[in-house]
Amino acid sequence: MNAFSGVFPYLVSPVKPDGQVDKPVLAQLTEHLIQCGVHGVVPLGSTGEFAYLSAAQRLDVVKTVIETTAGRVPVIAGVASTTIQDAVEQTKRYVELGADGILAVLEAYFPLNDDGVEQYFRAIAEAAQGKPAVLYTNPQFQRSDLSLPVIERLSHVENIRYIKDASTNTGRLLSIIERTRGRMEVFSASAHIPACVMLIGGVGWMAGPACIVPKQSIALYEAARAGDWNRAMELQRPLWRINEIFARYSIAGCIKAALQLQGFEVGDPLPPQQPLDEKARKEIADVLASVGGL
Amino acid sequence: MNAFSGVFPYLVSPVKPDGQVDKPVLAQLTEHLIQCGVHGVVPLGSTGEFAYLSAAQRLDVVKTVIETTAGRVPVIAGVASTTIQDAVEQTKRYVELGADGILAVLEAYFPLNDDGVEQYFRAIAEAAQGKPAVLYTNPQFQRSDLSLPVIERLSHVENIRYIKDASTNTGRLLSIIERTRGRMEVFSASAHIPACVMLIGGVGWMAGPACIVPKQSIALYEAARAGDWNRAMELQRPLWRINEIFARYSIAGCIKAALQLQGFEVGDPLPPQQPLDEKARKEIADVLASVGGL
Amino acid sequence: MNAFSGVFPYLVSPVKPDGQVDKPVLAQLTEHLIQCGVHGVVPLGSTGEFAYLSAAQRLDVVKTVIETTAGRVPVIAGVASTTIQDAVEQTKRYVELGADGILAVLEAYFPLNDDGVEQYFRAIAEAAQGKPAVLYTNPQFQRSDLSLPVIERLSHVENIRYIKDASTNTGRLLSIIERTRGRMEVFSASAHIPACVMLIGGVGWMAGPACIVPKQSIALYEAARAGDWNRAMELQRPLWRINEIFARYSIAGCIKAALQLQGFEVGDPLPPQQPLDEKARKEIADVLASVGGL
Amino acid sequence: MNAFSGVFPYLVSPVKPDGQVDKPVLAQLTEHLIQCGVHGVVPLGSTGEFAYLSAAQRLDVVKTVIETTAGRVPVIAGVASTTIQDAVEQTKRYVELGADGILAVLEAYFPLNDDGVEQYFRAIAEAAQGKPAVLYTNPQFQRSDLSLPVIERLSHVENIRYIKDASTNTGRLLSIIERTRGRMEVFSASAHIPACVMLIGGVGWMAGPACIVPKQSIALYEAARAGDWNRAMELQRPLWRINEIFARYSIAGCIKAALQLQGFEVGDPLPPQQPLDEKARKEIADVLASVGGL
Repeated sequence: MNAFSGVFPYLVSPVKPDGQVDKPVLAQLTEHLIQCGVHGVVPLGSTGEFAYLSAAQRLDVVKTVIETTAGRVPVIAGVASTTIQDAVEQTKRYVELGADGILAVLEAYFPLNDDGVEQYFRAIAEAAQGKPAVLYTNPQFQRSDLSLPVIERLSHVENIRYIKDASTNTGRLLSIIERTRGRMEVFSASAHIPACVMLIGGVGWMAGPACIVPKQSIALYEAARAGDWNRAMELQRPLWRINEIFARYSIAGCIKAALQLQGFEVGDPLPPQQPLDEKARKEIADVLASVGGL
Repeated sequence: MNAFSGVFPYLVSPVKPDGQVDKPVLAQLTEHLIQCGVHGVVPLGSTGEFAYLSAAQRLDVVKTVIETTAGRVPVIAGVASTTIQDAVEQTKRYVELGADGILAVLEAYFPLNDDGVEQYFRAIAEAAQGKPAVLYTNPQFQRSDLSLPVIERLSHVENIRYIKDASTNTGRLLSIIERTRGRMEVFSASAHIPACVMLIGGVGWMAGPACIVPKQSIALYEAARAGDWNRAMELQRPLWRINEIFARYSIAGCIKAALQLQGFEVGDPLPPQQPLDEKARKEIADVLASVGGL
Repeated sequence: MNAFSGVFPYLVSPVKPDGQVDKPVLAQLTEHLIQCGVHGVVPLGSTGEFAYLSAAQRLDVVKTVIETTAGRVPVIAGVASTTIQDAVEQTKRYVELGADGILAVLEAYFPLNDDGVEQYFRAIAEAAQGKPAVLYTNPQFQRSDLSLPVIERLSHVENIRYIKDASTNTGRLLSIIERTRGRMEVFSASAHIPACVMLIGGVGWMAGPACIVPKQSIALYEAARAGDWNRAMELQRPLWRINEIFARYSIAGCIKAALQLQGFEVGDPLPPQQPLDEKARKEIADVLASVGGL
Repeated sequence: MNAFSGVFPYLVSPVKPDGQVDKPVLAQLTEHLIQCGVHGVVPLGSTGEFAYLSAAQRLDVVKTVIETTAGRVPVIAGVASTTIQDAVEQTKRYVELGADGILAVLEAYFPLNDDGVEQYFRAIAEAAQGKPAVLYTNPQFQRSDLSLPVIERLSHVENIRYIKDASTNTGRLLSIIERTRGRMEVFSASAHIPACVMLIGGVGWMAGPACIVPKQSIALYEAARAGDWNRAMELQRPLWRINEIFARYSIAGCIKAALQLQGFEVGDPLPPQQPLDEKARKEIADVLASVGGL
């Protein structure tokens, strides 16, 4: 497996009313994205509602995505837990299933100091048996954040090779890039402007919106990759409206609604999360239409 | 089962290095507290590290406590989840095991609106089959909070009879009391001064510190109950130092360390949570000694 | 001047459209409160909109209140600034005018460390030439807060004798009381339940609501002072609704609206602050009526 | 006066121990920056400690800068207040003195709704008598923020032509740009990566660091202006360390220390703000040296 770069959509997790993962729909979505040319797929990111799924449901999601992908693009499986023991078990299981990399998320209830944070991610990296790990930090939804010193220390772990920082602070990404050059690469989140992240040295983006505008995301990625910044910004401006919508509504609810509009029967976010109302669905439909996404 | 009132310690969850719940130690602690005269016990509160335990570990904890208690005092089992389906399953299981009440906690990753919050707690109450439910809200550690209007609406549910609000805002408790009089009772958390909460109409406290100073807590409760406020404040002043320590250190780490000092082999908090260092242990030992807790 | 205790209303600052302080109205309000039996008055607290007044307007406010009071009750004048030099000048001027004490507020734009905070309050205390100083901290509106260690250090300054902490955290008041016993006394703010603050050792309250319910506030103070806690809580319960209103609306707008309803032509808060709308005025009128304040 | 674009340093405000503005030093710094080629200067930004200066000191600062500049580059004077009346007076005074534009800052103590925010900035724009106004919002230090809808409404005011948003959220800048195209231009703050802001359509930056690295800032601006993004990022990477330092220390203290190292006797920040300690000065000296600033 070569280095990861490009557009990696965070997949939603379709779950039927009886609690079973809807494997055919998940396979259909995965296949569609591969056909669109995405560079990889990520089951069990935030958009994948990992925080709302049981261990069995998570396993079904990862298995379905790996089977559908069948080696055509890398699969980076999300691992998230409050404890090291559980995170290590998840990691081992997904690597055994054939995951090409691990997206590592730290959940927390009580505050955790830097040593605890570092131990958690080191343990996942070790359990990944050489597969690359992507650090994921989202100060908006998680109760712990990765400090710059911890990120720098973790960048020296052999297979911790990427980071996705979902804060809205683009300057922090440049600080990370400058401190980890040659050891770690940065992916943009939907809270950042991908064109800017590419300009400062990012290698792509891992985000929910790429699920619903995959071709447009890839065109933007290729323009930036080619150094055609005028073209990149021309593509970026209308696409930014998608990100704005994501920031306004609940992420999973928003992307599940958008996929329904595109004909994917992914269902609603898991209760007690509320499905989007009609006004929000209309707004999403309008934005999708404006960028050729419907 | 009569109405709940008095001192209800939040029990810690002792877990062995191999991940097994240490049932003998948990039984020993429960027995000790009952001998000390506590009015009830609560497995799987925040102090019980519910956020760090698997479903199987949680079940073992609740089962052990119910078996040890054997009906002598009520057992209120903590239920916590991000989804309604999982919360309902936990509730049913604990009630079947013999729990006398449910402490209902809402975990969240994405923000949730009031309707979602209300649906979650209503579903738990219904699943509790008539057993009383205690609403638990802790804005410090949880990503959702219970608004006053939602609390008022939930107070009209037949078996939602209590609330424990772990904010530091005592005035909010009085606002809750005034809005739910006759339908819901308030328990103090360790972030409040129990004597004050009793003064404004509270019926007791549910909190971690009662694990380590049960007799002192009961004496304070009885003075307040008798309206002897001078005596209550005399007992309250030195005890407040225990609460101060709790606010300074990680709660589970702090109470596990204190119990170790008292001879209960409850182990450390679950990794990557860090055990308290020597300085903190010394500080806890000093405070415990100052209130006759060692 | 003996020690301060009891009910000290924070006075509003009536300003005419041309920017002149409306001295007759301010004098009328001050006289009314003294007739009602308040134990002191405080011009230029938060309720007094100190942050919206020029140096000349502030001087007019303090002068008017001191002249009206004429020594019948103590006047504690608010001093607030971002710089030591300005705070010292304000203090000297108000003491020369005859203020009996200083309410010391620290404003900040950039964050300030504990040493800077301590220097600021020490400088005011020194400039007060033996008159007592009241520390005032309000984490809700101010960009700096007084830490417990700084409060403890400042309590050793001879004439720093009181503190008013406007956080909502009653437990913090008990922590302050325990650390400064014999050197510093605590006044309740409108964010606290006065009956609770009195129970734990407070000596009264300094707050905006006492402007509009002075007699009711005094009755509650006297019940608490006499140790008649049942009576105190009987008076406290309905009064708490006043505090709830204050927390919901902008403080100055709220109390100016309430005083207008009572016949004091104090005008609206200074622009661009907005006057309360009709719905809010109706709500305030209802609450005032319910406690005999109209 | 043509449209503003390019590098506009925020000037510090040197004040002597007796409280007098040190006019010769301020003139010397202003002259130096003009010689370095900056496109304009801004007295009384955050870096200029406006929040710590009296009305008389502010006037002296603006007057000195305008006299020194003598029309060679535009002077944009900072206006900041809690009230409309005071802000309007400041604006009129600075325009009469010859300011070419106004940087408009809203200070607040109590929360303010959108209507109040809008009225405040409209009143300043009107008082500026046709001179362009720059909206300035800094959610880190100010108690009010400009919402997107208010910014959009204000962009329709004839002479509100620029905005400087000092949040760290670069995506928000793109949202502003897309909503105000053709009516309002965006300047980067030191919390943003200037190269990124230029890429998405910004016209320059207004920030404290330009005081200490003016030539380097101009070179970066020119590379970006020319569309030479590789060169721009080559210059941007080392310069970013300057911004990182600013985020770590108090802004005014940091830039005053840096200017002292460069030989400008600008003194320390105003008490109770603390001067930087030796360790911090050493760190600043190292960073300055690394980018050729010493």
